[in-house]
This record gives sequence, C-alpha cells and structure tokens, in this order.
Amino acid sequence: MKIQLALDRLTIEEAIKIAEEVRDHVDWIEVGTSLIKEFGIRSVSQIKSAFPEKPIVADIKTIDNAKYEMEMCFQAGADVATVMGVSPLVTIELALETATKWNKKIMIDLLNISNETQDCLLNYDAILCNHLSKDMQEHNNSQADDQNNQYLYQLDRKIAVAGGITLESFEGIRQLDPHVVIIGSAITKAEDRAAAAQAFQRLTSGGENND
Amino acid sequence: MKIQLALDRLTIEEAIKIAEEVRDHVDWIEVGTSLIKEFGIRSVSQIKSAFPEKPIVADIKTIDNAKYEMEMCFQAGADVATVMGVSPLVTIELALETATKWNKKIMIDLLNISNETQDCLLNYDAILCNHLSKDMQEHNNSQADDQNNQYLYQLDRKIAVAGGITLESFEGIRQLDPHVVIIGSAITKAEDRAAAAQAFQRLTSGGENND
Repeated sequence: MKIQLALDRLTIEEAIKIAEEVRDHVDWIEVGTSLIKEFGIRSVSQIKSAFPEKPIVADIKTIDNAKYEMEMCFQAGADVATVMGVSPLVTIELALETATKWNKKIMIDLLNISNETQDCLLNYDAILCNHLSKDMQEHNNSQADDQNNQYLYQLDRKIAVAGGITLESFEGIRQLDPHVVIIGSAITKAEDRAAAAQAFQRLTSGGENND
Repeated sequence: MKIQLALDRLTIEEAIKIAEEVRDHVDWIEVGTSLIKEFGIRSVSQIKSAFPEKPIVADIKTIDNAKYEMEMCFQAGADVATVMGVSPLVTIELALETATKWNKKIMIDLLNISNETQDCLLNYDAILCNHLSKDMQEHNNSQADDQNNQYLYQLDRKIAVAGGITLESFEGIRQLDPHVVIIGSAITKAEDRAAAAQAFQRLTSGGENND
C-alpha cells in the first residue's frame, strides 16, 4: 500500500516544507486542486523539482478539455493526473489516450458518480479513487468509514482511497488493502508531522499491494 | 441577452489583448478554466484590473472545496464563479452560501448531469449554464444546436448557453433568448475580432433578457 501525501490549502512554499519533513515516510506526493487553482501549474513543476524521486499526482480534477489539461500536467512533471468520473466519457477517454502517449497514468475520481457509470469505468486502465469529498466530510458529518463501494477492493483493479482518513479510522482502510491511501490533514496538520507520517507508514506496511 | 466572452487556452497577456480589441462589443468576460489552472487565480485578478467595468466570470468549475474556491474567486475580483452541477449537493449549496455572503453570483454548469439532478438545481438562485463541452464539440462531432434542454428556456430562470457557438449557428440560440450567450473561439480566433464581436452584438440586441 502506497501513501499519497495530499497537499492542499497551502502556499507552494509551505507545501514543499511539509513534504520535506515527511519525505522518508510517504510514497507519492499529491499537488492538491487548491494549489493548482490558486497558483497554477507551476505548483506541480516546483514540487516535482523539489521531490524528483517521488511520483507526483496532479489533482487537476479535469472535467473537460482533457488533452490540454493532461499535457499541462505531464509537461510540468506530473506522473499521474486526475480526471472526474462524472465527466463525459469522451473526456475520460481523451485523458487516458493522452496519458498513454506520455507513458503516464490517470486517476479517475469516483466522486458522486452513479453505480452504472462506476461499473463502466472499471474497464479503463486507470487508478480508481474512491473519494469522500472535503465538503461532504466537513459539512455532512460523514466519516471516511461510511464509504461504501467496498466491492471495488475485491476486484483486480488499482484503487486509491481518499477523504478524511485519520490514524484512528485507518484500521477499516487497512483491511480493504487499497493500492493507494491518500492522507492530507492527518499528516499536514499534525503537531509532529514526521511522527504522524511514520505511524501511517508502519500501518501500511505488510499489505499485498506494494508493487 | 448578454455576450460573455470566454478566454481560454491563452496566456493572460493574450487574453487581455483580445478582450481589449472587443471591449465595446461584449458584456461579460469569462476567465476560462484553462487560464485558472495554468496561471492560477491571478488570471482573474489581472483581468478584473484590466476591465474593472465588466462583470468577470471565473470559470473555476468547482466540484469540491466550494467555500475555499468561491472565496478565492471573489477575493480576486470575480463577480460570478462556476460550480459543476454534477457536484455533491452540499458543494453547490456551499458555493451559493458563499456567493450570497459576498453579494456575488454562481453559475451552475449543467455539463453531463441527469434530468433528475437538473430539475433539482432549478430551485437555486443561480445562473444555469447549458453547456456542450469542448471535448464533446471537438471529438464527438456534436453541434451547438444539438443541445436539448430546450425546456429550460421556457422557465423563469437565468440561462446561459455555451459550446461552439458561431455566427452561423447563432440563429437557433437567438430564438431561445437566453440570458447569457457564451462565445469563445468564434470571437477569439476570428481574423477581425472586433468585427466578429460586433456581429454577435447586433444579433443579440432586441431580445427581452437585457436586464
């Protein structure tokens, strides 16, 4: 299981400082949507330059104009870029086609999609992200372990899981053994960030999805 | 009927230069998603500074983190910001709540939503944007006049229409008499941009939705 550190609602400088503190304990680094929309695509290139050894996920949340946005991310050094599962299918296919040309990957964010669409997306060669949104966490009192979609984890697919995951709620996630677990504020807002990241690292080791 | 000039796939400097050429013939200026994602929120503040007299639409396409993203847009000078209709409902409500606090407006992008969700969104005090996406235009051979949703225009709602509108396809739009018609490349890529914008301006005058 990989740990993807999500960097959001920060300046680029703060994001780099935080990622440096936990560098040894996380696998992938996510440049959050808020950084891209606030500072532009240089947020991706600056973070890739600071962490050339880490796979960088650009959480650009593409929903149209997929070729342009994917190329922007990959040119900036992203290894993975996100596209919304609720997009028109042509957009997801263009994102995938562009990633394939660049020898990169897409992550399809399953936020708010119907079961029917979700089943259709299982056919794509992509990481699927089971996502409880920030707004649902903060304003609907939802908990990460409310996430349904448990059947996803039984399939032979790369699944990422995101949304308010804490050390306390991690046990439920660990049992699902996803490919990627996306952690944001449980690390970035911890008093001792390195210790928090190290605790997640210990909890994630030993699963099967370590390729 | 207002003309909203959509500025996309340009540098901020090119966008400002183009908008200056057609300033007298357009009503609203849209800072396109591609500008925000490529250059960050300064694309909105720089364009607002250059055109203080024009309502500025930030096409940020929010799908989560609505309060943060809406505040970012309004602080940068946007008068209207966009939120995706396919978002969780809590996100649309947070966007609306934030806009109300700032005395600004949201535009809900109806891209790829179900009829059921669309009917639910009619209850909100927002501009509804009937949107044929770039990817659908460029890769599905769809035409702007394929857009269904014609019943929207019969309702007492502010409707915007977007997606590959040209001078040739404009007659169909004119008959629907939307509140806002969003024009991108038919102006930005015209050989004589001022003449193209002026032609749209002539065609849009005389409708009822001129408030």
